Amino acid sequence: MTETVRWLTPEEQRAWRGFVRLHERLGGRLGRLLQSESKVSPADYAVLVHLTDSPEGRQRHQDLARALEWEKSRMSHHIARMAGRGMVVREECPEDGRGAFVVITDAGREAIEAAAPRHVEAVRELFLDHVTPAELRVLTEISERVIRRMDEDPS
Amino acid sequence: MTETVRWLTPEEQRAWRGFVRLHERLGGRLGRLLQSESKVSPADYAVLVHLTDSPEGRQRHQDLARALEWEKSRMSHHIARMAGRGMVVREECPEDGRGAFVVITDAGREAIEAAAPRHVEAVRELFLDHVTPAELRVLTEISERVIRRMDEDPS
Repeated sequence: MTETVRWLTPEEQRAWRGFVRLHERLGGRLGRLLQSESKVSPADYAVLVHLTDSPEGRQRHQDLARALEWEKSRMSHHIARMAGRGMVVREECPEDGRGAFVVITDAGREAIEAAAPRHVEAVRELFLDHVTPAELRVLTEISERVIRRMDEDPS
Repeated sequence: MTETVRWLTPEEQRAWRGFVRLHERLGGRLGRLLQSESKVSPADYAVLVHLTDSPEGRQRHQDLARALEWEKSRMSHHIARMAGRGMVVREECPEDGRGAFVVITDAGREAIEAAAPRHVEAVRELFLDHVTPAELRVLTEISERVIRRMDEDPS
C-alpha cells in the first residue's frame, strides 16, 4: 500500500466491478443452461468454436492455449478430457518440434452443432436483447481495442 | 438446427465474440500477473473481495456461491483450499439449518491488501487506460442492466 498506487475512482470501481460481475454471472448462467441441455460445457464450447474456425478444424495445442489465454497445463487436461469423450483427437507431430495438433472430430462437430441453437438463444435472452445497437458498437470497440493492446504487449 | 433459431447477425457475432474474448484474455492475463506476484488467484481475489465487502467479513457459503454464480461443489472445493491456506475459516451453524458461514481471517485480509495495489495497476494498464469515461459509462449501464435482468429471472 504505497501512495503511488492510482486507486480506482468510484466510477472506475463501479464500472470494473460491474464488468467482472457481468462476466461471472453470464458465464455461470450460460454454463448451467448449456450443461443442463447438452454435454458441452462453456470451456468445451470455446475450444470447439476455435477449432471450427480453423482450417481443417485443427490447431496447434500451444496456439489454442495462447488464443484462449489458458495455462498450458489447463489446456492439456481439458483436451485430454475432450479426447476421452471423442470430441477431439491429438495428432502428434514429432518431426517439426512445434508440438501436437488438436483436431475436431465428427462427433465434436455434431456436439457443437447440437449445442449452438440453444447457446445462441441463451446469449440473446441473457444479453443481446438488453443491449441497444449503439451500445453494442461501443462494446465491440472497447473489446477489440483492449485485445489489440494485449496482443501488442504480450507480457 | 431449425429455422426458428434467431442466429446472430454479423454485428452481433462480432460484439459477442469480442466480449467473450476480452473476458478470456483479460481474465487469463490478470490471473497470470496476480499469481506471479502474489499467492492470490483471481478466484481467491473474487472470494476475498466479496467477504471484505460483507459485515464482519462473513457470508453464508450458499450466498457466496450465488453471488459468484459458482456451482456449490466448486465453491466447496475452493473454500476448502483457501481454508487450508489460512485465508478463510468455515463456521458451522448447526442450529439454524441454513448452512455454514465463510469468514475471512487476518491472513486473508493481509493477502488481499498485499495483492490489491498490483491488481489495481494491472486493471488500469490492461483495461481502464484504454477506455474513455463515456465508454466506461456505457459499459456500467450495460453490466448493471443485464445483471438486473438475471436477478429478476433466476432461471
